Amino acid sequence: MSAIEQAIQTIRRGADELIVEEELAKKLAGGRKLRVKLGLDPTAPDLHLGHTVVINKLRDFQQLGHQVQFLIGDFTGMIGDPSGKNQTRPPLTREEIERNAKTYQDQVFKILDPEKTQVLYNSEWSDKLGAEGMIRLASRYTVARLLERDDFAKRMKSNQPISLHELLYPLMQGYDSVAMKADVELGGTDQKFNLLVGKELQKQYGQEQQCILTMPLLEGLVGDEKMSKSLGNYVGINEPPQQIFGKLMSISDERMWRYIELLSFESPATIRQWKSEHPREVKVRFAKEIVARFHGAQAAGQAQADFESRFREGEMPDDMPEMTIRAPEGGILIAQLLRQANLTPSTSEAQRMIEQGGVKLDGERVSDKSLKVPAGRTVVAQVGKRKFARITVK
Amino acid sequence: MSAIEQAIQTIRRGADELIVEEELAKKLAGGRKLRVKLGLDPTAPDLHLGHTVVINKLRDFQQLGHQVQFLIGDFTGMIGDPSGKNQTRPPLTREEIERNAKTYQDQVFKILDPEKTQVLYNSEWSDKLGAEGMIRLASRYTVARLLERDDFAKRMKSNQPISLHELLYPLMQGYDSVAMKADVELGGTDQKFNLLVGKELQKQYGQEQQCILTMPLLEGLVGDEKMSKSLGNYVGINEPPQQIFGKLMSISDERMWRYIELLSFESPATIRQWKSEHPREVKVRFAKEIVARFHGAQAAGQAQADFESRFREGEMPDDMPEMTIRAPEGGILIAQLLRQANLTPSTSEAQRMIEQGGVKLDGERVSDKSLKVPAGRTVVAQVGKRKFARITVK
Repeated sequence: MSAIEQAIQTIRRGADELIVEEELAKKLAGGRKLRVKLGLDPTAPDLHLGHTVVINKLRDFQQLGHQVQFLIGDFTGMIGDPSGKNQTRPPLTREEIERNAKTYQDQVFKILDPEKTQVLYNSEWSDKLGAEGMIRLASRYTVARLLERDDFAKRMKSNQPISLHELLYPLMQGYDSVAMKADVELGGTDQKFNLLVGKELQKQYGQEQQCILTMPLLEGLVGDEKMSKSLGNYVGINEPPQQIFGKLMSISDERMWRYIELLSFESPATIRQWKSEHPREVKVRFAKEIVARFHGAQAAGQAQADFESRFREGEMPDDMPEMTIRAPEGGILIAQLLRQANLTPSTSEAQRMIEQGGVKLDGERVSDKSLKVPAGRTVVAQVGKRKFARITVK
Repeated sequence: MSAIEQAIQTIRRGADELIVEEELAKKLAGGRKLRVKLGLDPTAPDLHLGHTVVINKLRDFQQLGHQVQFLIGDFTGMIGDPSGKNQTRPPLTREEIERNAKTYQDQVFKILDPEKTQVLYNSEWSDKLGAEGMIRLASRYTVARLLERDDFAKRMKSNQPISLHELLYPLMQGYDSVAMKADVELGGTDQKFNLLVGKELQKQYGQEQQCILTMPLLEGLVGDEKMSKSLGNYVGINEPPQQIFGKLMSISDERMWRYIELLSFESPATIRQWKSEHPREVKVRFAKEIVARFHGAQAAGQAQADFESRFREGEMPDDMPEMTIRAPEGGILIAQLLRQANLTPSTSEAQRMIEQGGVKLDGERVSDKSLKVPAGRTVVAQVGKRKFARITVK
């Protein structure tokens, strides 16, 4: 296999679509460092594992020796990417964006090599466009073509409102590729339309067109929906080590293999070997890898030790009843959860058990009776020494 | 009749729609000078009589003592108002706009009192919006509502492209009303949608909403289409006195009454009296009024004298054959015109007559054999002493 074929194999690993492989091969054959763009809008203060799928892919390019350009969408963040959304979001203020942007950078450098990463802010060239430049940019695309985008088409069809500024989003994101002269742009599969706009705008501006690499959207801890903060089914990369470890240990074996495919830095050969081992061992190893990535190896070891000692101490059985309980908006109160899981005969008995220190969630004693468990979480609840249940809150 | 009722009667004269009369009455009852906005985009260097219909209405407001705000759309002109257009126009450059804007102002002051007219340029506040302000403005309106506009709806339905910047036009024009705190906005009937956007944006910005007064679109010299430079059926207000006079004398009596309604500054009582006079006399009086408005009373008298002496000298008959001839794009060559009107037996004979000085158009000798008569013109052609025809070129 040639070096270029090998590079493309690495690039393709875990990816959804590469548009167009021949173009990428040609760029690689040129021998120069490619400019590889990944843009993230700092619309929420923290990144979760779902975001890191594309960042990991950016790391692959970095390790192949290319110039990685991490773009913080402080301008586009104001618009708010409407991709996949079925309703209009009001634009965020510049202040909210700046607050969020700060934490992004630190989090990203737990995956990328800061020395070799160019961090850019798209307000740099977007602000310069001015009102006039916005008009001229808007003149380059027709309304009909923008409305072809899946989510726009659906909203138009069902008479859901689309604000005019949402149509400007793909153009602004595309203009980033022009300003950055990107060779390759990465994004989730839900970004494909926007990435293609960038490719086309580059052509209109007389530039060599970027290649596009889309990555699958990571599913959440439970269920079929993608990992997202609003669904509560996420692992935030700034969460404490114990929490990340516990959450990853709670996922199904099937979901674990999916996560490993998209999140582990181990070689394909190593992962192939894992398949013959006991899933619980693999899960521990994977959870440690992820905790180590964001908190260091020592914290990862400690998280594992804590987790295992809680299990031993609690004599948590290997097979316990599993159930699903529906939570009202905002989560379900701990006492109600215990009652509905039949761990206590009543909510008042549940409250009494909490007061006496006889209730644990994921091995940790619960002392706060007002604690709520949000939808999307799977917890191991324990009452007294003997009663256990693995409860998925929906 | 109260003073307010009288004012409203003056305002309504010749107008198409007043939205809403009760609101205007209330504003007038407040007793303060109203800010009356008229915006024109300097997309062509010269104004024609069609443009002056709304400017004349602005003059009515000025004479009623209100604050007239003449807005030169040097920013919106870059977008190019898509109203009534069935295709996308590329945006003009700032330079083209500035060149056109200069001549606009001089022309407008032949109708408005310069001392009492505030001239504004919308780049003043539109540029300040910046790229960010444009996004925020665009977030205030939905795509669906903008696509309700007649011409947009038609183009979407027939798969004619609409560029995204065209959707920004109504918003920018509406934002002008916000920036100017307009009490009343004038426009042609084709502007109704845009004017309503202004009214609504003012509400969103917490302002008192403007009233809207739409004026009919002036028909061209011949045919049913509106006066427009591209159709060639216009009277430019910067054309020489003789030309304006001749063009106005060429229109039908019916069209003359329409023009008088929308263009004459004579009182309704005077015009009622004209109805009992010979149309040719009225036409002369009206043509003089218009020439005097743009070139002064002396030029008007001279234009009339020239016109009448040409008629006498040519012994132009009162009743001559009338016909319509279709011109190819760019106009019809004079020799072909004469041939098709049966004024000469052949085009070579027509050319010979031109060489000999035996051909006149509207009483003026034709010496240039390459002269073309454009579509939309009505001319009196004369060959030799006796042969005449009134020819409408289509």
